[in-house]
Amino acid sequence: MSTDPADGTAPEDIRLDLQRSTRRGYPEAVLCDAKTPDQVARVARTWRESGDPGPVLFTRIGEGVAALVQHELPDAHHDPLARVVAWPAEPPAPQGGRVLVLAAGTSDLPVAQEALVTARHLGRDTRLVVDVGVAGLHRLLDRLEELRDPAVRAIVVAAGMDGALPSVVAGLVGVPVVAVPTSVGYGASFGGVAALLTMLNSCAPGVAVVNIDNGYGAGHLAAQISAPGSQPAS
Amino acid sequence: MSTDPADGTAPEDIRLDLQRSTRRGYPEAVLCDAKTPDQVARVARTWRESGDPGPVLFTRIGEGVAALVQHELPDAHHDPLARVVAWPAEPPAPQGGRVLVLAAGTSDLPVAQEALVTARHLGRDTRLVVDVGVAGLHRLLDRLEELRDPAVRAIVVAAGMDGALPSVVAGLVGVPVVAVPTSVGYGASFGGVAALLTMLNSCAPGVAVVNIDNGYGAGHLAAQISAPGSQPAS
Amino acid sequence: MSTDPADGTAPEDIRLDLQRSTRRGYPEAVLCDAKTPDQVARVARTWRESGDPGPVLFTRIGEGVAALVQHELPDAHHDPLARVVAWPAEPPAPQGGRVLVLAAGTSDLPVAQEALVTARHLGRDTRLVVDVGVAGLHRLLDRLEELRDPAVRAIVVAAGMDGALPSVVAGLVGVPVVAVPTSVGYGASFGGVAALLTMLNSCAPGVAVVNIDNGYGAGHLAAQISAPGSQPAS
Amino acid sequence: MSTDPADGTAPEDIRLDLQRSTRRGYPEAVLCDAKTPDQVARVARTWRESGDPGPVLFTRIGEGVAALVQHELPDAHHDPLARVVAWPAEPPAPQGGRVLVLAAGTSDLPVAQEALVTARHLGRDTRLVVDVGVAGLHRLLDRLEELRDPAVRAIVVAAGMDGALPSVVAGLVGVPVVAVPTSVGYGASFGGVAALLTMLNSCAPGVAVVNIDNGYGAGHLAAQISAPGSQPAS
Amino acid sequence: MSTDPADGTAPEDIRLDLQRSTRRGYPEAVLCDAKTPDQVARVARTWRESGDPGPVLFTRIGEGVAALVQHELPDAHHDPLARVVAWPAEPPAPQGGRVLVLAAGTSDLPVAQEALVTARHLGRDTRLVVDVGVAGLHRLLDRLEELRDPAVRAIVVAAGMDGALPSVVAGLVGVPVVAVPTSVGYGASFGGVAALLTMLNSCAPGVAVVNIDNGYGAGHLAAQISAPGSQPAS
Amino acid sequence: MSTDPADGTAPEDIRLDLQRSTRRGYPEAVLCDAKTPDQVARVARTWRESGDPGPVLFTRIGEGVAALVQHELPDAHHDPLARVVAWPAEPPAPQGGRVLVLAAGTSDLPVAQEALVTARHLGRDTRLVVDVGVAGLHRLLDRLEELRDPAVRAIVVAAGMDGALPSVVAGLVGVPVVAVPTSVGYGASFGGVAALLTMLNSCAPGVAVVNIDNGYGAGHLAAQISAPGSQPAS
Amino acid sequence: MSTDPADGTAPEDIRLDLQRSTRRGYPEAVLCDAKTPDQVARVARTWRESGDPGPVLFTRIGEGVAALVQHELPDAHHDPLARVVAWPAEPPAPQGGRVLVLAAGTSDLPVAQEALVTARHLGRDTRLVVDVGVAGLHRLLDRLEELRDPAVRAIVVAAGMDGALPSVVAGLVGVPVVAVPTSVGYGASFGGVAALLTMLNSCAPGVAVVNIDNGYGAGHLAAQISAPGSQPAS
Amino acid sequence: MSTDPADGTAPEDIRLDLQRSTRRGYPEAVLCDAKTPDQVARVARTWRESGDPGPVLFTRIGEGVAALVQHELPDAHHDPLARVVAWPAEPPAPQGGRVLVLAAGTSDLPVAQEALVTARHLGRDTRLVVDVGVAGLHRLLDRLEELRDPAVRAIVVAAGMDGALPSVVAGLVGVPVVAVPTSVGYGASFGGVAALLTMLNSCAPGVAVVNIDNGYGAGHLAAQISAPGSQPAS
Repeated sequence: MSTDPADGTAPEDIRLDLQRSTRRGYPEAVLCDAKTPDQVARVARTWRESGDPGPVLFTRIGEGVAALVQHELPDAHHDPLARVVAWPAEPPAPQGGRVLVLAAGTSDLPVAQEALVTARHLGRDTRLVVDVGVAGLHRLLDRLEELRDPAVRAIVVAAGMDGALPSVVAGLVGVPVVAVPTSVGYGASFGGVAALLTMLNSCAPGVAVVNIDNGYGAGHLAAQISAPGSQPAS
Repeated sequence: MSTDPADGTAPEDIRLDLQRSTRRGYPEAVLCDAKTPDQVARVARTWRESGDPGPVLFTRIGEGVAALVQHELPDAHHDPLARVVAWPAEPPAPQGGRVLVLAAGTSDLPVAQEALVTARHLGRDTRLVVDVGVAGLHRLLDRLEELRDPAVRAIVVAAGMDGALPSVVAGLVGVPVVAVPTSVGYGASFGGVAALLTMLNSCAPGVAVVNIDNGYGAGHLAAQISAPGSQPAS
Repeated sequence: MSTDPADGTAPEDIRLDLQRSTRRGYPEAVLCDAKTPDQVARVARTWRESGDPGPVLFTRIGEGVAALVQHELPDAHHDPLARVVAWPAEPPAPQGGRVLVLAAGTSDLPVAQEALVTARHLGRDTRLVVDVGVAGLHRLLDRLEELRDPAVRAIVVAAGMDGALPSVVAGLVGVPVVAVPTSVGYGASFGGVAALLTMLNSCAPGVAVVNIDNGYGAGHLAAQISAPGSQPAS
Repeated sequence: MSTDPADGTAPEDIRLDLQRSTRRGYPEAVLCDAKTPDQVARVARTWRESGDPGPVLFTRIGEGVAALVQHELPDAHHDPLARVVAWPAEPPAPQGGRVLVLAAGTSDLPVAQEALVTARHLGRDTRLVVDVGVAGLHRLLDRLEELRDPAVRAIVVAAGMDGALPSVVAGLVGVPVVAVPTSVGYGASFGGVAALLTMLNSCAPGVAVVNIDNGYGAGHLAAQISAPGSQPAS
Repeated sequence: MSTDPADGTAPEDIRLDLQRSTRRGYPEAVLCDAKTPDQVARVARTWRESGDPGPVLFTRIGEGVAALVQHELPDAHHDPLARVVAWPAEPPAPQGGRVLVLAAGTSDLPVAQEALVTARHLGRDTRLVVDVGVAGLHRLLDRLEELRDPAVRAIVVAAGMDGALPSVVAGLVGVPVVAVPTSVGYGASFGGVAALLTMLNSCAPGVAVVNIDNGYGAGHLAAQISAPGSQPAS
Repeated sequence: MSTDPADGTAPEDIRLDLQRSTRRGYPEAVLCDAKTPDQVARVARTWRESGDPGPVLFTRIGEGVAALVQHELPDAHHDPLARVVAWPAEPPAPQGGRVLVLAAGTSDLPVAQEALVTARHLGRDTRLVVDVGVAGLHRLLDRLEELRDPAVRAIVVAAGMDGALPSVVAGLVGVPVVAVPTSVGYGASFGGVAALLTMLNSCAPGVAVVNIDNGYGAGHLAAQISAPGSQPAS
Repeated sequence: MSTDPADGTAPEDIRLDLQRSTRRGYPEAVLCDAKTPDQVARVARTWRESGDPGPVLFTRIGEGVAALVQHELPDAHHDPLARVVAWPAEPPAPQGGRVLVLAAGTSDLPVAQEALVTARHLGRDTRLVVDVGVAGLHRLLDRLEELRDPAVRAIVVAAGMDGALPSVVAGLVGVPVVAVPTSVGYGASFGGVAALLTMLNSCAPGVAVVNIDNGYGAGHLAAQISAPGSQPAS
Repeated sequence: MSTDPADGTAPEDIRLDLQRSTRRGYPEAVLCDAKTPDQVARVARTWRESGDPGPVLFTRIGEGVAALVQHELPDAHHDPLARVVAWPAEPPAPQGGRVLVLAAGTSDLPVAQEALVTARHLGRDTRLVVDVGVAGLHRLLDRLEELRDPAVRAIVVAAGMDGALPSVVAGLVGVPVVAVPTSVGYGASFGGVAALLTMLNSCAPGVAVVNIDNGYGAGHLAAQISAPGSQPAS
């Protein structure tokens, strides 16, 4: 819509894609950290006021803004570790294959959890495995059975620093590995770039890379990979 | 194995992973452009001399080296556009979902074809669509039915320059999009880095990124995504 | 002027280009975020004290400094979203072609608005369109008529993340597209660099790129492109 | 179209956009250096065999491939300095404003000439000025009258090394400056990146930047800016 | 000296180079922003307690730490714009050629002033010229006489954004130009990198580049260039 | 372990490697700055509650978190300069060769001290030498005897800015030099990247490089190099 | 020495460090690929003509230049895989610990071999292990006994692409790992930069990184680490 | 001048700055490697045909093009190591201070020689010192007297790889050091970028940096620094 500059922040400047769930088969998501708290709250209000708009995820949301959203959508679920607010609170009943989520270290947990919450609210069965970095290989090898469980259809691996875990995991399993580099590290990790490059150059095939710290994207992609059947008719 | 430096190039310096097909459920692949012609030929010979070693792909292979491989494995298939030699020549009967491969422009065709040949020899039904770049959107929109065909389970998109096509495609379909940036372009395309970054920052979820010009990896990942059932028991 | 180091911050250290409006045909602009509040206030005061100095824009100005400027130039207009203070408050009557401003997402709105305010105060008719990112192509295609309106002479497109929108728009229209990458995004968006590279590598011709977050520059360039006639005599 | 991998290079893999001239109001262009000679020749043949397909430019074309194109389209014009083949040979009668093209140094001439040929074949009056780099400012100042000629509606500036010329020119004129960085330079010029950054950071507004060495894009954009009237109806 | 880790911050961990003035002919300098306030204060105290240690400059010093230094060396001079404390307060009587310091814009003034104060305390006659950026060339050309004054032996040019001023100045004069890029700018200025590259690629010879924001280094180098005679015997 | 997203921060999400000391022969280390204070405190508590878990180092730990750790492990030693908490407080009796630690300047001291504390708690005799940067070569040459002492088996060199010291030291001694670039510097030091590149390109062999500011890694590597005998049996 | 420009290539322009072996305890090395064939040949001749100059290695030497060197030093040994010529041909009798050299893949073999030859000619016992990349972890785990052999005192790991092997190896052993990234890979491997960053960010301590493709440096460092005793007196 | 595109390579496209010697007091220079052989030859011819145009240097000139120039200007001097052709062959009688040129290693000699030839033809007394890299510090310390000779007014230091030599030299002398990084090195030297950054971050003041491999610029700057008196009147 065309907006007069004098009221550029009027409600009309946000055009929601309420039918996205129907069109693509997945819920809408609102990336919060590049919006003002007021903009996010208005999205939540619009959602509430729409009749049956489909589910929605608010991602990269801080404590304060999450409270604003829950004020508008009181029955939403807030996962502070994942920095996600999901509405409705209850995820749909799981369908399709399982999404296994690995965090190389404790510091990678927030991104891993964002992936897990996303996949769960997109309708997948999920499991989380933590602290299986390649510096102590036995910890990973102890979980081989879980990794190769026939119920698993996609594995998300969140890793920072050297980002080496996805290469190793992809060499051990037959399902796709969704690799999400995290910004964990310092110096020449360059905010996750080192891990990103490691993953793009994986010597094992079967590694799908997403953006640094993009737990939402990783969970979404894993949910699509492990979807029960064919794509929805448009 | 331990090798005396005086004969560091002895045949023993290549250790084939002949059982990889059994272990991971996918054929072995030999990346040729970082090996000497002699090393590649020895791999082919070893393959021939092994009893029932499973299928193999030789990727990023030039005309001359391909001839050497076909000398060792006469019944292999050479696709010069894709720069791939496949053995056996005949791909397995297709199983699972279809892999649709898009090339944004004619110049992206070699990478797209490498993805297609790979997916085909990993046992998938494949289709190719060319010249659907975002500068002429109607060309893409004309193919919407093909993109949304329920038989399609994964879409590979090869694009250089601005690399914008995967974002647009992912917004139109429900299946995962495997985005492979190509080094097509000049100046600030930085050999495919611009397209790579575009894809990593896709504003539409559902985009799985692989390395620049990595048609093999894209086809392999797409074949895994569209695999018929659960992962093989190890 | 030569300044004694002991009083390096004396008023004389700012040399205004009061005749710039006459010389180039466009108002002077003061980039505020690299200046101290005191320096900005002194510029405003000098402007007030000059006889008929022509219009001026204060860009990238925060709330506090804007108040200082309005104290000196009480009849100035402050647009907090665009972070611009314009003097005089009233833009000139529109001349030349229309400048259409597109924001790919809500988060790109501040940069888009800065472009719009600039073009308006340089004497153009302006319109704003928000939330037309390529992930939901129908939103853009719904606005085709507006994009192709013969009154439009230049289109500004503000986009972050994948920065793909200018390529798509340039393929749909005949007028120049001024692409302004925004720093919206995270991880491998590198503060707008990913979007910048996408725009520089646009597969559609007709894309004029300006610096990241440079809404002022985009609006200025669009205003020049859509100027009524020839350049002013010097 | 869908192509069997066995004949991936069949003529069908090139889908021409023969109506582009009608749709956008500008000729189609074929970027040759990322295509095989055979692919380029097939495009030329298709053009010849189409009834009235509108004009076409072959850009970044080497001597050998240009000969192939001229074999298919004998009445095409080849400009070896600009590395362009244009068909038909004769540009349309000039309309709209003049496009002035500046080359900072002799080494920037090929890119400048590519811009000039493009603008001319898009229907503009063009002029070329060479060797006006900022290291000898008097050479530029001697040409002020030409720069400020009211007939000029857009100025293309091709510059490598420090890329400082567009900033200086934009400070002297009222019309838009299309800045095209060239890869001329060595060491920390990084193949034109230094000049590109200089232009993006121009302290003078009114600078529209295109990709490194993108003379075609610069000439196209300048032709659009100096177009006679409004955009064509779609 | 060897320090026990239990008291790693003991005074002994700072080894002053009290004789540097004698050895190289120039005062010692203490870069403050990478040291703790306590470390800087201890340096100042050591200086005071040494008998005749020669002059010293404290650079990149904030308000608070400057007060600590002045507490130890009460007769020191603090220039807050330049972020320098000089001891003794009075610079030596000027010798050698004049150092002319140019700031492209008001925002470059702190770095320019740091260069000026440094050169002055190294014993040079200095002059400052502000707001002579290339976007308004007449401002620079108005000062040509000052630039070409035979008394001037070195010119420091501080510039951010496009960093184009040193190229232009070096083309106008015969003396060396010390170019100091500043971090003024945003987006693709990359904290001064764009200006740094411009200066390294100057198309005019005679440009000596120093690190971004290194006003101290620029002033020191200019003072050495304009030194009265030969180097001191060691 | 698998964790329900509702309690993703439960104690189980940290899997300690209590036997690492036995397995690799060196203590476990906990990188604190990427963990929440609560996570670090839980690690400390787990350590206390484990029977005989072996020594542990908490690195990159701030004042507040160090207090939390000391609350759980009251007999731990806190070195605020090195930002390390070590448990037990007393290092083991020194074995093997001496580790000499050099800090180019005072600002490099925290990283140098982190290396020293690490090597000491891994069982080495350590010495510290400060302020021996290459700008005043005599300071280094005065310490030659200490550098070449036969007791020294590894030398850690911490340096920022130009990072030139390791090259010079490696040319003077026969033992390995562990080079740790620090983020000390500004502008084109790029947070330690300049020093890192200098060290990787050392014209003297015998330089082992670790990550920027990685004092822990430098000290650990030096302790391994100077270990008394062969590696422990696994 | 001072050279007249007219004969800048005279023999005097190469100043050999014939006593380096005595001073540092290790042979001199001549990096050949940045020298002209004539310069390398003159070095070899000077070596021959010097009385007892100590051993020398010619590294990064091509076939043709190696022949020139062997013409001057007929009893030298040429290893074409490692691109090294060693004189004298026979390495000294091994002393100190063993240096184990790992090549992740066949393509990393030349760099691994350069390290091995270097360590051998510096007087170490050496072993080579090939094709143990992390994509097939069982290949590495099969060699654990060799890796943990008490005779091994340093392990060189050469790896390109994801560069993940050193992290994994360092987690399995107690001795230092010398990690040498190779330029094997394509696209976002950036000529070895991806592997380099992975190694610098290793989540396992004990990794000493050297420059990309620097097999000589890796072998030299490993030989120093595994040296029998203390450093030579200077 | 304005050129018809049909003859864009006509002689008129090169505008010589024949009076540059008079204006700036230094000879004109022609950078040859970005020009065609024909363009360079035409410059030489124009020079010959001009009456008394002042001296000229042709830099970065290959063997073949040098012969073309000498055909036009038979009395020119060609220095193949420096890749320079100078006309007239005889440099002017030396005036001002001496320029001392240091090459860290033999591979840096071409760049050092280019600096030396340039300074000599700009009228300075010059000396060359080779192979004084910091890996063997005694070689540099042996030349201290030459470095500190009162006749020396500027020192050029050419160094690749770690680029550490200028920092060390600047700490030993009182005159300005002109640091020219060379592209000598491999891997993470990034074609001279590592050396460039080292020099920009020199911990010793007094270092003037020029572009990578810019021997001409280094020699020119050094000649200006050591010029006999004040700048020429304009």
